[in-house]
Amino acid sequence: MKDYGKIALGEALRYRGKIQVIPKVPIKSQEDFAIWYTPGVAQLSKAIYKNKELVFDYTWKWNTIAIVTDGSRVLGLGNVGPEASLPVMEGKALLFKYLGGVDAIPLPIASQDKDKIVELVKLIEPAFGGINLEDIESPKCFYVLEKLSATLNIPVWHDDQQGTAGAVLAGLINALKLVGKRLKEVAITFVGAGAANIAIAKLLISAGADPKSFIFVDSKGILHLKREDMKKLKRENPWKYRLATLSNIECRTGGIKEALKGADVLIAASRPGPGVVKKEWIKLMRDDPIIFALANPVPEIWPWEAKEAGARVVATGRSDLPNQINNSLIFPSIFRGALDVRSKRITDGMIIAAAKELASFAEKRGINEDYIIPKMTEWEVYPRVAASVAVQACKEGVSRISVSWKEEYNRAYKIIELTRRTLVILLKEGLIK
Amino acid sequence: MKDYGKIALGEALRYRGKIQVIPKVPIKSQEDFAIWYTPGVAQLSKAIYKNKELVFDYTWKWNTIAIVTDGSRVLGLGNVGPEASLPVMEGKALLFKYLGGVDAIPLPIASQDKDKIVELVKLIEPAFGGINLEDIESPKCFYVLEKLSATLNIPVWHDDQQGTAGAVLAGLINALKLVGKRLKEVAITFVGAGAANIAIAKLLISAGADPKSFIFVDSKGILHLKREDMKKLKRENPWKYRLATLSNIECRTGGIKEALKGADVLIAASRPGPGVVKKEWIKLMRDDPIIFALANPVPEIWPWEAKEAGARVVATGRSDLPNQINNSLIFPSIFRGALDVRSKRITDGMIIAAAKELASFAEKRGINEDYIIPKMTEWEVYPRVAASVAVQACKEGVSRISVSWKEEYNRAYKIIELTRRTLVILLKEGLIK
Repeated sequence: MKDYGKIALGEALRYRGKIQVIPKVPIKSQEDFAIWYTPGVAQLSKAIYKNKELVFDYTWKWNTIAIVTDGSRVLGLGNVGPEASLPVMEGKALLFKYLGGVDAIPLPIASQDKDKIVELVKLIEPAFGGINLEDIESPKCFYVLEKLSATLNIPVWHDDQQGTAGAVLAGLINALKLVGKRLKEVAITFVGAGAANIAIAKLLISAGADPKSFIFVDSKGILHLKREDMKKLKRENPWKYRLATLSNIECRTGGIKEALKGADVLIAASRPGPGVVKKEWIKLMRDDPIIFALANPVPEIWPWEAKEAGARVVATGRSDLPNQINNSLIFPSIFRGALDVRSKRITDGMIIAAAKELASFAEKRGINEDYIIPKMTEWEVYPRVAASVAVQACKEGVSRISVSWKEEYNRAYKIIELTRRTLVILLKEGLIK
Repeated sequence: MKDYGKIALGEALRYRGKIQVIPKVPIKSQEDFAIWYTPGVAQLSKAIYKNKELVFDYTWKWNTIAIVTDGSRVLGLGNVGPEASLPVMEGKALLFKYLGGVDAIPLPIASQDKDKIVELVKLIEPAFGGINLEDIESPKCFYVLEKLSATLNIPVWHDDQQGTAGAVLAGLINALKLVGKRLKEVAITFVGAGAANIAIAKLLISAGADPKSFIFVDSKGILHLKREDMKKLKRENPWKYRLATLSNIECRTGGIKEALKGADVLIAASRPGPGVVKKEWIKLMRDDPIIFALANPVPEIWPWEAKEAGARVVATGRSDLPNQINNSLIFPSIFRGALDVRSKRITDGMIIAAAKELASFAEKRGINEDYIIPKMTEWEVYPRVAASVAVQACKEGVSRISVSWKEEYNRAYKIIELTRRTLVILLKEGLIK
């Protein structure tokens, strides 16, 4: 395997950043500045002053989001702080533009206090059409997302929660088709109870799964209401506590092994493997087990081990293995769709619509054990997902404007295609070396 | 005269924003994401975590600034709030990139409280290499600039103060050459005592002018220490109060007329004319009067009226009249130079260096009464100013790295030229229509 870290260090010194700001209006003579700047621009300000909503028509707000982080849980690195998170946020901004045509601004901030994060995002709301929260540790991330969702009039999204949940749901829909089981009937065991698994569980419930058949395992074992840390949990992480009250109605105890007995699906988002989940434990699951082992860089169990133990479908977070559960399939088109209808929020319904569209795209191409979810390179799927998300936003009444599926598909297609074409030209002309 | 406001409204609907974010690295296959994003990017984060300064080498921070406003004093429109200020901030970002090669992000914020503005900027410091404050009302703008200059480790700049002051100084240096007077000997009358004139006076003092020969006139008449509002002023606007203590040692009273008696230079930055300054008052000034009438869109006195009354050199803020005193000559290259040496601040010395370079550029081309300062279209001046600013930062010990004038000139030239070339290609290929 190539040493991508070493390559990244060399290339970073050469390019010194992954994104740039460039004009999107023509400048041919000084007279153009009389249009783009003073005196002409004053008319735009006057118009927006009279009717605030016009800011979506007259400025880049309609297509621009901030990627806000406190640097408290960056990739697999942990709490490295805001400066060290900047290269990651830039990479994310690159994906946002390349895959979704969204103008995204990296915004790592110099505080890790949850209320300061909330306050900062409220302050910058006028400048942006949406907010992508990123790499904020749990349970702080739940608090920040909830607070902001309740107050902002632009969509706010925490990718480590919602993006992961959406991608898992997309894969799970097709995996269940392959084994002939139904979401509302399966027993699901979650290994890990951090931001990802809590958000996945929440979304699966919205999509029809039955939380009574869920079992969670964290570092202290199976989550059940009689565990001694429940009082503390209720106070410090009510989101996790709530799932404890809904799940594991048999009040099972023990570890991962005990939690896997009779489960149809395993969703692991815990710590890098291999060996976190043992081969022999998979044998305790029901027929045709489905395994999502999402830890990076090494999944909780290698796919071949899981297969040897009888797993029917295995998905991981890795791009070099089949069935990559990849947030990049979700966030660019979720925002594309949400921004294009000027949505005020991103609902579970919109995420489910995105997941269903991804699943149906893969199904049309022909699903099998090694292809339950599209790949990032199948970029035709992005405008489709955007269209389904936009239509769902209209249906739920959270959008400011209405579109049909076909209208949004065409618009999203054009926007995303323009970015790709721009990059090709810049490369061809040597403006990017 | 064309109705630029009307044109601006039409074009804004067509383009929906003036700037965009695009990749500046090549993307040719999915493998590239392993370099620009995970897993490769983790190495950059680790390196920066160990040594924070590396963020300037590995990310776009070295070239990126935020344009922060509370929308409290936008152009000539007054307090229109953050949303209505966004088109203006976008126009500014366009100028920053086109003239200075600087990546600038518009950031209008949802609070007009001075301490909230300070707090917000402190929070976003990790994401940016510099801060441009814009369109914040006086005296709040003095407080915010002072507080931030004292705490941030990146340069902070208030363009309505410092940019205007720099451009006035550049023009004044050459105007004084034409009339054969010296800065330290001239008597200067200031009409208006807002952000611009207070900052101009401050910079002129740094450049050698004698404040004892200054007289300020505000809406209540000549500023002098016996005026009844002095106690209030001391409390509410100590910056203006300080100038009251330094200036007008004769303790002259009256209005603009009385203030102009025997003055060599008039600097008016008050309210739109014509007729704010009367023709016959100019006749009271010393020989070869120099008039800067900076109000927009109409100067305090029309140049032809001033000339008829004996003015030797007249400058205004308008692009359609000779001698435009234009901030756009200053801010792009001030930041270009400051960013390229990773300066921690922007000193008066750096602004004076910029003004001197502008003046000497015009002088080499041949100054006369209608050409005391370069035009915005003479873009060869920008890398020269950047080089002089960068060298001054090194000399004063506020930069993180050292460069020679020639090195910085070449670098700035290349950076600015690349933006222009990119725009030409995007237009030619129809990617900007």
